[in-house]
Amino acid sequence: MYTLFYAPGAASLAVHAALHEVDAPHDLVKVDLQVQRTEDYLRLNPQGTVPTLVIDGLAHRESAALLLLLAERHPQADLAPPPGAPGRAEWLQWSVALATSLGGPYRLWFYPQDLGLPEHSEQTRAPVQRILEAAFERIESHLVAHGPYLLGERFSTADYQLCMYMRWSRAMPKPATEWPALDRLARLVVARPAWRNAVAMEGLRGWHLDGLS
Amino acid sequence: MYTLFYAPGAASLAVHAALHEVDAPHDLVKVDLQVQRTEDYLRLNPQGTVPTLVIDGLAHRESAALLLLLAERHPQADLAPPPGAPGRAEWLQWSVALATSLGGPYRLWFYPQDLGLPEHSEQTRAPVQRILEAAFERIESHLVAHGPYLLGERFSTADYQLCMYMRWSRAMPKPATEWPALDRLARLVVARPAWRNAVAMEGLRGWHLDGLS
Ligand SMILES: N[C@@H](CCC(=O)N[C@@H](CS)C(=O)NCC(=O)O)C(=O)O
Ligand SMILES: N[C@@H](CCC(=O)N[C@@H](CS)C(=O)NCC(=O)O)C(=O)O
Repeated sequence: MYTLFYAPGAASLAVHAALHEVDAPHDLVKVDLQVQRTEDYLRLNPQGTVPTLVIDGLAHRESAALLLLLAERHPQADLAPPPGAPGRAEWLQWSVALATSLGGPYRLWFYPQDLGLPEHSEQTRAPVQRILEAAFERIESHLVAHGPYLLGERFSTADYQLCMYMRWSRAMPKPATEWPALDRLARLVVARPAWRNAVAMEGLRGWHLDGLS
Repeated sequence: MYTLFYAPGAASLAVHAALHEVDAPHDLVKVDLQVQRTEDYLRLNPQGTVPTLVIDGLAHRESAALLLLLAERHPQADLAPPPGAPGRAEWLQWSVALATSLGGPYRLWFYPQDLGLPEHSEQTRAPVQRILEAAFERIESHLVAHGPYLLGERFSTADYQLCMYMRWSRAMPKPATEWPALDRLARLVVARPAWRNAVAMEGLRGWHLDGLS
């Protein structure tokens, strides 16, 4: 039995979609990121972030790790190449690479306080924007050569991660959907029933099939 | 057959130690990070970073992902809890968490050009230092409660990752060995024959058993 602590549209979204994908019964607990985390929540997740996924009473965090775990616990859902299969190393690589090259810089973008700044100035925002755009640029090159998914013809949890990070760029100077192969991947992902269920349950508006903006 | 592209003491060190740990035949190719990467190398690794691990002719990157992969390919080396075993979720979580909370900030520390700066000023260096120290502080709390290794009594590849990142702090204002439980973990890790072999092969000086500084 799973319990997912989430905030609408946050780093929990990919994990939420994966829970629908593996068709596992799960409880949802909404965390309000605008108010201070409770003592109880900080016991589950000392950093106070979402997602936290509680499995049989034990709390786990890090969206990329939770996706690896769900794929492994539910092989029948076919969310990743199994151990030893072609694409396995690429799947591990992208799962980590997206967390470091997009997840990390996004934190700096959305949380200037991590850098000790009350808010960003143009001078501090611009380099973070360049880091994010360079990451999307590299992923675009990969998808042009090897798409439509990160692992070619094969959908995997890494595509959920990527689509979630792409969605976060929708109000940025250059939304990720401006890169054609990324846009194509996002359209394939948001058409999946599991993603649509998660989006509906979280009450998210915008960035739907008919227009990713 | 493995070929590891490495630079002495870089993010390749944990992977190098793991190759000794699983006792797999491997070739080493040294990459000089001071000179521009060759076209050939950029074909293997478009970001031009180390490590790159070539397995049966295919190139793979991201140290954390390579450690997950080596543990999985060599179960007899017992470098991680197997799927379904206690500690499995924690192993995945730490492998990703170390890459995001230490690996990412270290890049900002060592590569101010990633932030568009020719070099750091006190004003840009201090927040990155705070991020790194806060990460070590959280890991220390975890180890005090649940050590001596990240997974308790069980050594895993995540300890190699952590020890490698700790080593990078040796010339920083507050080296990671100043936290007692971290210091204890590092001493356990550097005593392993596989780590010592990798360190010797890479010609690293300093940060040895008799004094981590
Ligand atoms: N590396 C973590 C990052 C989690 C994270 O930073 N989540 C954000 C929301 S997207 C959060 O919880 N922010 C609230 C806070 O930091 O207080 C993951 O991918 O799970
Ligand atoms: N996330 C990557 C980071 C690799 C990385 O940044 N390596 C550094 C050395 S520690 C590097 O190759 N720097 C040279 C460069 O960026 O040009 C990993 O953990 O493998």
